[in-house]
Amino acid sequence: MTTKNRPKLQLALDMLDQRQAFSILEKTAEYVDIIEIGTPLLKYQGITILHSIRQRYPDKTLFVDTKTMDVGQYEADFCFEAGADMVSVLGVADDNTIRGAFASARAHSGKVMVDLIGVPHVVERARFLDTLGVDYLGIHSGIDQQQRGKTPLQELREVSASVNTPLSVAGGINPATLPELLQYNPGIVVIGGAITQAQQPGAVAQAVREILNVCTA
Amino acid sequence: MTTKNRPKLQLALDMLDQRQAFSILEKTAEYVDIIEIGTPLLKYQGITILHSIRQRYPDKTLFVDTKTMDVGQYEADFCFEAGADMVSVLGVADDNTIRGAFASARAHSGKVMVDLIGVPHVVERARFLDTLGVDYLGIHSGIDQQQRGKTPLQELREVSASVNTPLSVAGGINPATLPELLQYNPGIVVIGGAITQAQQPGAVAQAVREILNVCTA
Repeated sequence: MTTKNRPKLQLALDMLDQRQAFSILEKTAEYVDIIEIGTPLLKYQGITILHSIRQRYPDKTLFVDTKTMDVGQYEADFCFEAGADMVSVLGVADDNTIRGAFASARAHSGKVMVDLIGVPHVVERARFLDTLGVDYLGIHSGIDQQQRGKTPLQELREVSASVNTPLSVAGGINPATLPELLQYNPGIVVIGGAITQAQQPGAVAQAVREILNVCTA
Repeated sequence: MTTKNRPKLQLALDMLDQRQAFSILEKTAEYVDIIEIGTPLLKYQGITILHSIRQRYPDKTLFVDTKTMDVGQYEADFCFEAGADMVSVLGVADDNTIRGAFASARAHSGKVMVDLIGVPHVVERARFLDTLGVDYLGIHSGIDQQQRGKTPLQELREVSASVNTPLSVAGGINPATLPELLQYNPGIVVIGGAITQAQQPGAVAQAVREILNVCTA
């Protein structure tokens, strides 16, 4: 058995309220590698939420889930300039949009995750993006997709067997479903509601972190 | 020749700066039916930009280009509650996301435009959405798509022949390219850069409004 790198733990802030976001971060940040500003939180709070989180957590990796569908360079530019380390662009977006986000990332020493949510032929698209040299590919079952039973497991299995690009995996993951996903060696595990909506967010974040340590030792 | 309804003129605010947005609106609002808060402007300024524009232009229709890809109801809810009349959801999004945005619109007496940007089989998807009873379908060549020569004309022609839902058309439209589009009778014409980046934004907006009046008389 080979020793694997521990996947990074990304906490998705899925609320709208800034005080609530900071309250969760106070309880969980010590267990988290990457703080994610979720798409609705960005749209609700605007770019000032990046400044606020960057100021309070200067050493954390800061991911902004822009889910960019057009003007890839323009949207990535203002996020990197506001302190983001990584942004997302949609895999269903035009190749020019994805290339624009990359160009911005390279210019700002940042990274781009291409989110494969909603991509019809996911393995084929992932293989193409793999050749572009993207930083991360996101295997992502959206919250609205989870409502009809979708999980990221199947796509994670197929895509991980098809590409070299590190994978980020997201979509309703909790401490019970995490171990099965880890056998496909994702680079980043994204957890939102299982932590943010828990009675004890810190305890759940700690438990997730321990699962990551144990399962990849 | 039948008399057609004049298409509504939607001005897309494609900048990031609020003062710049208000400066353009002061020069153009009298010619505009719908004020669009563009996706990057929303992500940069957050929900406060809705409040500001709604306060200064209480009688204009306010469209927020959320380009929602997940949590359709959640994102639409906070936009309608902040004063939006219409939001967008991506045609490439999950059907549950689109239905969620509709549910929110119905609950708030608002409207939803499904943006067909990046949809692979656009006529087939438009026909399906037509059966759902959506408010508007958006024929939209993104700015990154325009860089490689794409225009909305071809898709406007095909989709307008295939559905009953009113269409919104966007993508690099200017006074020179507008008349050709009007023969397909869109319900909304979206203009951004041709007005916002003009030396005389008011004069261009007025010219566009006159073309709309003349070509649909």
